[in-house]
Amino acid sequence: MSGLSRRDLLRNSAAAATLAWGAAARASAPVAKTQGPGVYRLKLGTYQITALYDGLWPIPINDDFIRNASRAQVNKALETDFLAPNILPISFTALLVNTGKKLILIDTGTAGQITDSAGTLLANLAVAGVSPKQIDTVLISHFHPDHINGIKTKDGTKVFTNAEIQVPEGEWAFWMDDSNLRAASGTVHKYFLNTRRIFRDIAKDVRRFSPGGEVAPGIMSLPAYGHTPGHCAFMISSGSDNMLVLSDSVRDPSLFVRHPDWQPTFDMDGPTAVDTRRHLLDRAANDRLLVHGYHFPFPASGHIIKAGRDFELVSVQWTPL
Amino acid sequence: MSGLSRRDLLRNSAAAATLAWGAAARASAPVAKTQGPGVYRLKLGTYQITALYDGLWPIPINDDFIRNASRAQVNKALETDFLAPNILPISFTALLVNTGKKLILIDTGTAGQITDSAGTLLANLAVAGVSPKQIDTVLISHFHPDHINGIKTKDGTKVFTNAEIQVPEGEWAFWMDDSNLRAASGTVHKYFLNTRRIFRDIAKDVRRFSPGGEVAPGIMSLPAYGHTPGHCAFMISSGSDNMLVLSDSVRDPSLFVRHPDWQPTFDMDGPTAVDTRRHLLDRAANDRLLVHGYHFPFPASGHIIKAGRDFELVSVQWTPL
Repeated sequence: MSGLSRRDLLRNSAAAATLAWGAAARASAPVAKTQGPGVYRLKLGTYQITALYDGLWPIPINDDFIRNASRAQVNKALETDFLAPNILPISFTALLVNTGKKLILIDTGTAGQITDSAGTLLANLAVAGVSPKQIDTVLISHFHPDHINGIKTKDGTKVFTNAEIQVPEGEWAFWMDDSNLRAASGTVHKYFLNTRRIFRDIAKDVRRFSPGGEVAPGIMSLPAYGHTPGHCAFMISSGSDNMLVLSDSVRDPSLFVRHPDWQPTFDMDGPTAVDTRRHLLDRAANDRLLVHGYHFPFPASGHIIKAGRDFELVSVQWTPL
Repeated sequence: MSGLSRRDLLRNSAAAATLAWGAAARASAPVAKTQGPGVYRLKLGTYQITALYDGLWPIPINDDFIRNASRAQVNKALETDFLAPNILPISFTALLVNTGKKLILIDTGTAGQITDSAGTLLANLAVAGVSPKQIDTVLISHFHPDHINGIKTKDGTKVFTNAEIQVPEGEWAFWMDDSNLRAASGTVHKYFLNTRRIFRDIAKDVRRFSPGGEVAPGIMSLPAYGHTPGHCAFMISSGSDNMLVLSDSVRDPSLFVRHPDWQPTFDMDGPTAVDTRRHLLDRAANDRLLVHGYHFPFPASGHIIKAGRDFELVSVQWTPL
């Protein structure tokens, strides 16, 4: 029997059976309206790292989405991972680091201010048993809205009321500069305005760091320019364990791990972003580093292996603690 | 600066910083003792499928673990997925199918009766908002303890009090036969005794099915012999969507998707299990079917692609509903 005829048979008999069994059915559970919690913990030395899912933003792919790849090439890459064509499912996963003494949140999610299908970070933080006021430090990789919007609610209230906010000096210098704002247009202009909405009235609480040094216990900031002018990655180290937090230097793995030379319009300086991406992917592969990518599919951690001139992501396999 | 010297530097400065910052630290969140919930939903036609994580059993790999592969070959396969050598992390994920009218649970987990690091199925069912008494049908793929133990608590109480339990006729015939019990030894002998513990006093509530027909609305049982004599897979169909539930025909993907010819001692009839495995993997790859594997890493679903003579698993990418 072919698969098709089996399915046809099944559909017909299912319809009949539903009639018969439906009458006797108990009150069934309603179909759930939301995904299960997105909270995944892993041990890094004596630290506990918790991946917190914020959701997903499906964006249409137009012909200009990648400066140096066609829509057909992008669709082929999506198909390889059994993803629908013409839509990029942009996933958001932030990291909570518990050093045992300090709680550090790396990037803050969309706060539901970008798309209805994202904004679950605080709900997942609650599932993880942590309230926003317990966060000691908020570390920001760069000033795109999906990374900084969680700092405030839509009405401007600070969310992490006791946290010191640390941001890359290069991001502050670029985005808070009024001549840059005046020179900007379109989406980027909106990003400038959003940066002011988030930071202007809390500037005194924001600590700016130059990348290359320690920004929190066991967390080193790394310059990773190109995606934005001051974009940073981080290295979390505890004992002999290390995790490379790629931030947006390597975005959606279906596209940019397999095709690190592709330059999405998201990357403000395409060639520099490619250099940074290749440098960090090479380092991750050579040192067999555990990596986290903000736009990797939840739980957004894994390892990088070389595949010819390019790379593959080997996602972590879910385990209990 | 090399990665190593950077890390050494970081460790030293981290130690100093922890002393300095520790004094000012607020009461931090205790390090969590358990993994986040393992509940993942996906839409299949009008059905809602929920993957429920039961945990993981790390078993030592001895030289006889695979009849036709050496321990070195197994370790190489584990290393490819960044897993530790000499230990197989056996993951357990059951499926809940909500047809809108009926709740069907496919396999029932370990009930914490096999290892301390598994037994979270009921906790995750509760996170999913479903109580055991709401389950209408329990479908069993085969009679190994990690699939049937959840039917009862350790003290013999039925868990799914309102459910009809459906089991493959071939499994019942084999495992409930007393001459087979008498001929068995070692672990298999224990499996025979366990089968009696679970089923003997509830035999009247158990419906036995011959594979190849519909066992619940939209769910077809498929003969998938070899792992055990009556082992079954299932096809769940709703609208034009289908999910092939591989059960144990294809176990841990790091080993048996990439090496379908390998014959683990778990497979009672090795050559038949290989035929079944190749048949189902071929079908999944050819028809681009969504598949679920009971021992795949949570959320345990994905697609199969051909890789030379063998196969690869492309896991689903986590999305909101």
